[in-house]
Amino acid sequence: MKTAQEYIDSMRKMNFELYMFGERVTNHVDNPIIRPTMNCMAATYELAEHPGPIMTATSHLTGRTINRFTHIHQSIEDLVNKSKMGRMLGAYTGSCFQRCVGMDTLNALSIVTYDIDQKYGTEYNKRFLKYLRYVQDEDLVCCGAMTDAKGDRSLRPAEQADPDQYLHAVEERSDGIVVRGVKLHQTGAVNSHEIVVMPTRTMREEDKDYAITFALPADTEGIFYIYGRQSCDTRKIDSPNMDVGNIRYGGQECMVVFDNVFVPWERVFMYKEWEFAGDLVELFASYHRQSYACKSGIGDVLIGATQLIAEYQGTSQAPHIRDRILEMIHLNETMICCSLTCAYEGQKQPSGTYYVNTLWANVSKLNVTRFPYELARFAQEVAGGSLVTMPSEKDLRDSKVGKYVAKYLKGVEGVPVENRMRILRLIENITLGLGAVCYLTESMHGAGSPQAQKIMISRRTNVERMKNAAKRLAGIDS
Amino acid sequence: MKTAQEYIDSMRKMNFELYMFGERVTNHVDNPIIRPTMNCMAATYELAEHPGPIMTATSHLTGRTINRFTHIHQSIEDLVNKSKMGRMLGAYTGSCFQRCVGMDTLNALSIVTYDIDQKYGTEYNKRFLKYLRYVQDEDLVCCGAMTDAKGDRSLRPAEQADPDQYLHAVEERSDGIVVRGVKLHQTGAVNSHEIVVMPTRTMREEDKDYAITFALPADTEGIFYIYGRQSCDTRKIDSPNMDVGNIRYGGQECMVVFDNVFVPWERVFMYKEWEFAGDLVELFASYHRQSYACKSGIGDVLIGATQLIAEYQGTSQAPHIRDRILEMIHLNETMICCSLTCAYEGQKQPSGTYYVNTLWANVSKLNVTRFPYELARFAQEVAGGSLVTMPSEKDLRDSKVGKYVAKYLKGVEGVPVENRMRILRLIENITLGLGAVCYLTESMHGAGSPQAQKIMISRRTNVERMKNAAKRLAGIDS
Amino acid sequence: MKTAQEYIDSMRKMNFELYMFGERVTNHVDNPIIRPTMNCMAATYELAEHPGPIMTATSHLTGRTINRFTHIHQSIEDLVNKSKMGRMLGAYTGSCFQRCVGMDTLNALSIVTYDIDQKYGTEYNKRFLKYLRYVQDEDLVCCGAMTDAKGDRSLRPAEQADPDQYLHAVEERSDGIVVRGVKLHQTGAVNSHEIVVMPTRTMREEDKDYAITFALPADTEGIFYIYGRQSCDTRKIDSPNMDVGNIRYGGQECMVVFDNVFVPWERVFMYKEWEFAGDLVELFASYHRQSYACKSGIGDVLIGATQLIAEYQGTSQAPHIRDRILEMIHLNETMICCSLTCAYEGQKQPSGTYYVNTLWANVSKLNVTRFPYELARFAQEVAGGSLVTMPSEKDLRDSKVGKYVAKYLKGVEGVPVENRMRILRLIENITLGLGAVCYLTESMHGAGSPQAQKIMISRRTNVERMKNAAKRLAGIDS
Amino acid sequence: MKTAQEYIDSMRKMNFELYMFGERVTNHVDNPIIRPTMNCMAATYELAEHPGPIMTATSHLTGRTINRFTHIHQSIEDLVNKSKMGRMLGAYTGSCFQRCVGMDTLNALSIVTYDIDQKYGTEYNKRFLKYLRYVQDEDLVCCGAMTDAKGDRSLRPAEQADPDQYLHAVEERSDGIVVRGVKLHQTGAVNSHEIVVMPTRTMREEDKDYAITFALPADTEGIFYIYGRQSCDTRKIDSPNMDVGNIRYGGQECMVVFDNVFVPWERVFMYKEWEFAGDLVELFASYHRQSYACKSGIGDVLIGATQLIAEYQGTSQAPHIRDRILEMIHLNETMICCSLTCAYEGQKQPSGTYYVNTLWANVSKLNVTRFPYELARFAQEVAGGSLVTMPSEKDLRDSKVGKYVAKYLKGVEGVPVENRMRILRLIENITLGLGAVCYLTESMHGAGSPQAQKIMISRRTNVERMKNAAKRLAGIDS
Repeated sequence: MKTAQEYIDSMRKMNFELYMFGERVTNHVDNPIIRPTMNCMAATYELAEHPGPIMTATSHLTGRTINRFTHIHQSIEDLVNKSKMGRMLGAYTGSCFQRCVGMDTLNALSIVTYDIDQKYGTEYNKRFLKYLRYVQDEDLVCCGAMTDAKGDRSLRPAEQADPDQYLHAVEERSDGIVVRGVKLHQTGAVNSHEIVVMPTRTMREEDKDYAITFALPADTEGIFYIYGRQSCDTRKIDSPNMDVGNIRYGGQECMVVFDNVFVPWERVFMYKEWEFAGDLVELFASYHRQSYACKSGIGDVLIGATQLIAEYQGTSQAPHIRDRILEMIHLNETMICCSLTCAYEGQKQPSGTYYVNTLWANVSKLNVTRFPYELARFAQEVAGGSLVTMPSEKDLRDSKVGKYVAKYLKGVEGVPVENRMRILRLIENITLGLGAVCYLTESMHGAGSPQAQKIMISRRTNVERMKNAAKRLAGIDS
Repeated sequence: MKTAQEYIDSMRKMNFELYMFGERVTNHVDNPIIRPTMNCMAATYELAEHPGPIMTATSHLTGRTINRFTHIHQSIEDLVNKSKMGRMLGAYTGSCFQRCVGMDTLNALSIVTYDIDQKYGTEYNKRFLKYLRYVQDEDLVCCGAMTDAKGDRSLRPAEQADPDQYLHAVEERSDGIVVRGVKLHQTGAVNSHEIVVMPTRTMREEDKDYAITFALPADTEGIFYIYGRQSCDTRKIDSPNMDVGNIRYGGQECMVVFDNVFVPWERVFMYKEWEFAGDLVELFASYHRQSYACKSGIGDVLIGATQLIAEYQGTSQAPHIRDRILEMIHLNETMICCSLTCAYEGQKQPSGTYYVNTLWANVSKLNVTRFPYELARFAQEVAGGSLVTMPSEKDLRDSKVGKYVAKYLKGVEGVPVENRMRILRLIENITLGLGAVCYLTESMHGAGSPQAQKIMISRRTNVERMKNAAKRLAGIDS
Repeated sequence: MKTAQEYIDSMRKMNFELYMFGERVTNHVDNPIIRPTMNCMAATYELAEHPGPIMTATSHLTGRTINRFTHIHQSIEDLVNKSKMGRMLGAYTGSCFQRCVGMDTLNALSIVTYDIDQKYGTEYNKRFLKYLRYVQDEDLVCCGAMTDAKGDRSLRPAEQADPDQYLHAVEERSDGIVVRGVKLHQTGAVNSHEIVVMPTRTMREEDKDYAITFALPADTEGIFYIYGRQSCDTRKIDSPNMDVGNIRYGGQECMVVFDNVFVPWERVFMYKEWEFAGDLVELFASYHRQSYACKSGIGDVLIGATQLIAEYQGTSQAPHIRDRILEMIHLNETMICCSLTCAYEGQKQPSGTYYVNTLWANVSKLNVTRFPYELARFAQEVAGGSLVTMPSEKDLRDSKVGKYVAKYLKGVEGVPVENRMRILRLIENITLGLGAVCYLTESMHGAGSPQAQKIMISRRTNVERMKNAAKRLAGIDS
Repeated sequence: MKTAQEYIDSMRKMNFELYMFGERVTNHVDNPIIRPTMNCMAATYELAEHPGPIMTATSHLTGRTINRFTHIHQSIEDLVNKSKMGRMLGAYTGSCFQRCVGMDTLNALSIVTYDIDQKYGTEYNKRFLKYLRYVQDEDLVCCGAMTDAKGDRSLRPAEQADPDQYLHAVEERSDGIVVRGVKLHQTGAVNSHEIVVMPTRTMREEDKDYAITFALPADTEGIFYIYGRQSCDTRKIDSPNMDVGNIRYGGQECMVVFDNVFVPWERVFMYKEWEFAGDLVELFASYHRQSYACKSGIGDVLIGATQLIAEYQGTSQAPHIRDRILEMIHLNETMICCSLTCAYEGQKQPSGTYYVNTLWANVSKLNVTRFPYELARFAQEVAGGSLVTMPSEKDLRDSKVGKYVAKYLKGVEGVPVENRMRILRLIENITLGLGAVCYLTESMHGAGSPQAQKIMISRRTNVERMKNAAKRLAGIDS
């Protein structure tokens, strides 16, 4: 396994074609907007430096201890530890640590490549396992890339006016294929070694050129990245200490363009087997909905910050403040319960991979689309108006006005004004700023928007059984 | 194990002193208000007639197959199966089946009697295990009796003007003790063979006469029962078929008076060890909060009924109707996830008994104090106004007006009007009538009111850990 | 104006053909199930016995002081006083007082008959005003009858297999018409002197036989009534005092069958003018949605009862209890604000009648479909478990067990146990029993189900204006 | 009245001592962070350039047409038009336009100065009216300054270790007083001509040096301002067009330090009349809670933006999207109803000023602390993930990557990609960025935090009346 430092070093060797604010970024590792996001990813290495059941696992391919993010779940315990790892890292970074997408992609592929081979006698699973071993041995980050541009949403892939609205093969060669298109919302893209591309939806036969799955080094020629701009991003440049709130960590989103990119056959894991596209989407989505356990970890940070600010401001014993914090805890724990249950009630698939309970994975994520917004509201209620009216760190440090800021923003005796301001900035970060992007909006849309979860809940509920229970009690025979 | 029929027969042999509507009830087994509640209890025998992992278990005392309701949890699997049993029986009866209280009492006692003995060298656990074996061998129902009258709630037991406001020992004899007091809200009391009495709160040394736990046959001399009157109770007399909604099952609550009742020493499991009263309450409460998994089972019935009435009325495809039903499913599944998690994350106690995770047991129950009310509201929304305006079954059967009722309450083609009326009555039962008592009010207050859960959540959350996580991210050293 | 007693006497003269529980009811005035509902209606007379701006108004036809329930709104003040009257009577009866439907019907007809005449030169308005004068002079109760059986909801009136699923004219004679059909959910039907029938939906030309509006004495030959059975209805027979909770008042719902009933022309106010059916429905619905101001009055009672039970039980100073009661107040006042606003922002129609603001009338009602359920939940939370476990009044009065009930259900010092039980029964009434029918289910479906309000809100919102505001701020030109 | 341009010009003449990011700001009018906030204030002049009943009024002092923001309410109509003006300007600016605080301060002072004079024979009202006339004639902006630093919140003003934690008189001179302290959360401070200082809480006699009210030119010597830093503030510098979302407008908050500032007697409106401090706070707070009508205006913008993005992305007809938007409308209209009701039910005070209904003003604001968060969540749900993942405007304009951004972020045919991005940035602004500060956090804490409203609701509710209503219905005599 790599250390965190080795991971950072490995990123220096990547030759990304990356654009931000209309300019090419050359040294992305030291870019002040990017570095905190890379620190997040590095945390997935750092916490694994001391092996233990949460962060590491034993490879079923090699028997070696590997980072859990590269592991294929071999047991219920693996699934459960994945949820716990998510919460732990969420609490450690207060942010999106980005590496779960790749893990969920690998696990979904371990199942679907096996299933395709069973039907067609292909060798996708063999290819995949070879690739997986490479990922495990090198302890790599994979960016799982699913969402296409989609163009007109009322039309299927093959019906689009612009054929590139869904990523597709534009040329088939003896040694591989050439692909074109885009993947949107790519979390942690330029913190990754590899990018693994999947279709974004169910396909029909006519869409088969779009039913394509493959992996490539993230800096392959023809792939370029456009960095997403987010709330308070440049504060990391102008005020990298206090004002940024979360002084070490942050999230990252890119648009990833595939501009006629070559993929060798050994890296292709699905090609035109359109009827498996839907399976892959559902497998990935269910695993990934479980992954939102991380939001309970960010919730832990937000609850801690809210409790601290109440203490710093002398309101922590007020019944209504205690009640808001308890409500935050209650909602936060309700979320993790659902994630854990879908793990505990997972099942072994024919490929040997353990898969979460789909119904409860979706229930879990649907709660995540709601509760963090409630927690954010309660945190703002407890924090008070200074959350959005207090001056900058530079004012606090200023020789003229600094002493006034310190005098008048003081909380209870014994708490440095700086601590109060730091915690307010952290709450601002999570509820309005950089952190809100991943704590709120990503909770809403990551791994699919709420309606996607509702549809899956609908499919995975046995309503007939419920109807029969009602009929029996009401005395209806048929 | 007893069959359902044997259970009913055993009830005929009980000689309860029972009052209802100001009169002594002589044949309680055939009383039309009581019988449906006894059918519920009988269902806990009926479903165990075919042994399987949910309803039965292997006694750790005798190795024999026993009803799970008399079992002491020996593993995580036992705890999980308890939650699943609750949901299954909730869906089977659409009601409170009453037997979980005794199970939770026995499990709590298996731990606390052991702990007292460890401290004091007493023999409570030995006595208890002997009693437990009797309960298992005879497959008995135990009524777990906790809630005292409490008098002035601002005063402790020993401070009350009327010493009987908390049940207590009024005399100590060589062969046992004499007790006086009352236990309120006794679910399933006159469907039970045994009554097991526990203290209702933490005690201090001056309250030690109130720190008392014992078991007695439920028809012991000096114990008498006053039946609680509930919404629509007499409809079971005047319209035992359609109008009652749930034609077979219902709940039961009694006030149980102990009017100088003798308890032999071998049935006493705690006596003046006041410092263990709080432990017992917490143990019982946590087990019992898990037990509210049953409400997901009643939720299954209500969802099934709601889906049926939408189909009967031709509205099941309307997007807003589908959305309400999906929301019901989502909330219902969220509840069960929390109950399952507190089971999966249970732990073995020194006595060998497995105990649920207290934090999540309380989170589970706190959701139960809220979501059933939401489901009830959605069910009423989908059901429409006929839920509360339609005529009685007698009108439907009447030779003059029956044909008009049938003509004008008809739903979609092919569905008998009677079916529609039956399902509406079932929804009425669960949301406004007999069933609402256990689906709503009992969900609110059973196993402790919401504030009790909030207090336990507060105690069982490590807020210091959360504060430290926040401080680290905000750059605060101390 | 009639006194309350004169109203009761006038009811004795009505010769209703009424069925309940499969039997013909002969003396409906003294029937214990019906009488509390009649007391409610009588309250609309009783409170008007001392004329004042809320309960009475000045007839624009005669200049005489009349009961506001027979008044056509002549000003904004009239509209506002209507909302206030609703809240006042809701608080006075704790129930549905049933008379608003007729008032809303008369006001809607005052507009639409005028509008039809303007288009067709008919004389409906003249007929209507003559009828109105009769209603005002005699101070009559009109039952406004709208909801048809509807049969298959995917089909229009003229498309139904059974033509009677919507009430329609089956014969046209020189002196009038003969009608057949049913009106469901008729609130206060057999407490009314007159019944005024309206179409239930928009019509197309092919439905014109269904576009029909008329008034008849409620005991006209051919009209018969089947009484709706509701939660705890028979408790009014077996325990008319304490156990019933609300000892004086209650609601009433009937199915009203029109079995070939003759209507003379002078009582016909719309006949085949199908294009006005939708207008009439919308006018009536908007007025009637405003009328749900009454639920703030029932809310007042429930809040008062909740505060009392907290005081009786010694919990009224606990912060969480205070918070629940404050939340109840907040929601209750939010409801009345919306009802008042739709009145204050009403407008004069060409006919001279003042009409409420449709958007806000619908917003008002949509809140009413939600908040009472919240209040009911909070009330149950504060009330505690005795709400559904305490014995009957007969037990309290019993010579043997009564003293135990009194001893153990006692609340704080100085409050008679009977008072505590009475308030618990009142809360049971409003949240689970007779009162819950009108406080909850009627709040949901009366004057149209929530989706009906959403549709109207959608129609009455100027989204284009909002889009333009957004475009301007975002810098979008077109 | 001033034109918008004249207002801007007048601001150039102000000589503020203002600090931002640790530096003195010299030309605040053209500062890119400040200018959008000044544009907001200018909008209050711009919309008044065409006199009409909403934006202008007739001065009761001079009979001249004045800007409503300088008007003392002379009628119910004035109060109602104030609410409507708030919504209109909220929709026009999508932001906090800052001028209501001064209006609410002037109105509160018109009452309380009169009341003090009545009791003490002072001349505060005369002074105040002279000042008011000046404000009206010059059409000035007043910054109403209330919130002190408060230090240790468990201590009263006179008990603080640091006497400056509440602003107070430190010297009394023949020509006036000298004051010291701070006012926090000062909205629109450096867009104002005048600053009017009030006490922040009820006082006791020992606090009388803190019971002080006065007005000064905002650039008086000794007053200095420290600008609050807010989410995305510097985006106004680096990307003042698209990325900022709301391209014209924004809010502003300052900390205002009074460092031994002299106030002449003619500008002092309360001095040591400690028993009126609480009245002034309540009067101002109630008026100001009504003012949150503006949030319905911002809600209009957010609903418009949400509808547009749904149309741009082709999802506007999906039932779940329609439902979210309808829910947004419903909540938004519920808010305005409460603001209007507290206006319509206002009452004339002895001074002649009309005052809002306190209960409903508080109910109104309490809803505002909740519903905007719901609207924000729904807007984010409809907007989709691109809200937080899309590139910057500079990327769109870039010669290399711009065409890819345009190709792949295209929504439905015919909508320029720029429009889609602009609306997404506007939604980002209101829910996560600059606008969220005033739409969310200010809605929570402005005019007092939710608990402050709950306390006032508690005080202004006649619970005794409700208890009596409940008792009567339950049959309780006393």
